[in-house]
Amino acid sequence: MKATERRAKKTRLKREAILRSAAAAFRRKGYYGTSMEDISEQLLMTKGSLYYYFHDKEEILFACHDYSLGRVLEKLYEVQKTDMTPSEQLRALIQGLVDVMIDELQGSALALDFSALSEPMLAKIIKKRDEFERGMRAIIVDGVRSGEFRKFDAKLATFFILGAINWISRWYRPEGAFQAKEIGKAYSDLFLTGLANGTLGRG
Amino acid sequence: MKATERRAKKTRLKREAILRSAAAAFRRKGYYGTSMEDISEQLLMTKGSLYYYFHDKEEILFACHDYSLGRVLEKLYEVQKTDMTPSEQLRALIQGLVDVMIDELQGSALALDFSALSEPMLAKIIKKRDEFERGMRAIIVDGVRSGEFRKFDAKLATFFILGAINWISRWYRPEGAFQAKEIGKAYSDLFLTGLANGTLGRG
Repeated sequence: MKATERRAKKTRLKREAILRSAAAAFRRKGYYGTSMEDISEQLLMTKGSLYYYFHDKEEILFACHDYSLGRVLEKLYEVQKTDMTPSEQLRALIQGLVDVMIDELQGSALALDFSALSEPMLAKIIKKRDEFERGMRAIIVDGVRSGEFRKFDAKLATFFILGAINWISRWYRPEGAFQAKEIGKAYSDLFLTGLANGTLGRG
Repeated sequence: MKATERRAKKTRLKREAILRSAAAAFRRKGYYGTSMEDISEQLLMTKGSLYYYFHDKEEILFACHDYSLGRVLEKLYEVQKTDMTPSEQLRALIQGLVDVMIDELQGSALALDFSALSEPMLAKIIKKRDEFERGMRAIIVDGVRSGEFRKFDAKLATFFILGAINWISRWYRPEGAFQAKEIGKAYSDLFLTGLANGTLGRG
C-alpha cells in the first residue's frame, strides 16, 4: 500500500470511529444535548483534531445518517441484482438491516432523528432515505403481483418492518440474549409469514 | 359540578395540554434542546404559569411517559378482563396502542427516549413499561400454549410489534393517507398472521 493510500484508509477509519462514538452520544443525550467536546472527550481526542475531520456537529449528524443510509442502500442494491424471489430478497434485506443496526453504528444512526439537519444536508438524507424505502416497497409490490404475497399496502408494510428494525437500537444490548442472526431470522419469519399469500384470514 | 371539581378538571386538562405540547417539542428538538420557555411560548403561557403545573422540565418528561404508559396499561387491563382469545386480545391491544400513539400525545410520548430521567422517576417509568411488556408477552405465551400461535419467542415478538407501533410517530401525518383505524387493522393483520399457527414455513 502506498503512503497516500495508507493515509486515506487511516482517515476513513478515524471518521468511522468518530461517527460511532457520536451516534452513541446523540442517542444517549440527544443531538442538542451533545457538544463537540463530549464527542472528542469520549474518543480521547483533542477538540482540535475532531475539527480536522468534521467542521461542526451538524456535519457529524449528517455523516452518521449518510454513512448508515449508504450501508443499507448497498444491501438493497445487492439483493436487487440477484434473481431471488421477493421473499428471499426481503429476507436478505431484513438481515442486512439488522446487521447494520447492531454492528455498524451501534444501532444508533438509523434510528436517530434527522430533523435537526438544515438544507441542503436534510434534502440529501431524505433523498437517500426515500430511495431506500422506494426500493423496499418495490420488492413488496413485486411479491404481491407475482402472487407470492397477499394484497397489502406496500407503504404500510414497509413502515411496519422498518419500525420494528429501527426500534432494535432501543432494547438491544450486546451482552443480551439475542444476537443479530437470531433477530434477523425471527423478524423476517414474522414479517414474511404475515405477508405470505394463502394465510389471509388466519389471524 | 362543584367548584372544587371544576377546578380539578380544569387543572387536569391544562396539564394534558402542556404534556401534548411538550412531547411534540421534545420530539422536534430533543429533550435537552427544549427549554421551559419553548414549552410555555408554544402554549401562549407565561413561564410562571407553566411552573405552577410542573416544577421543571424533567417532571414534564416524566409526566409525558407516565401519562402515556397509564393509557396503554388501561388498554392492557381492558383486554385482560375479557374472555377473548389471545388473537382477539392482541388485535384490540394493538388498535388501542395505535390510537394512543396517534391521538393522545400526537404519537410522541411513547417513542421518546426516557433515559434523561433520573431516579426515582426513571425507576417508576421502567416499572410501568415492564408491566406493560410483561402483559403483552403473557398474551403471546397464552396463544402459543393454546396452539393458536406457532412457537415463537414472546420477547422478540413483543419488541417487534412495539417497535412497529412506536415508529408510527416518525412518519404519521394527520393529513396523510392513513388513519388510526386503518393502521391498527393493517398492523394487527400482519402481526397476527405472522404469529398464527399453521403458517410455519410459508414465508
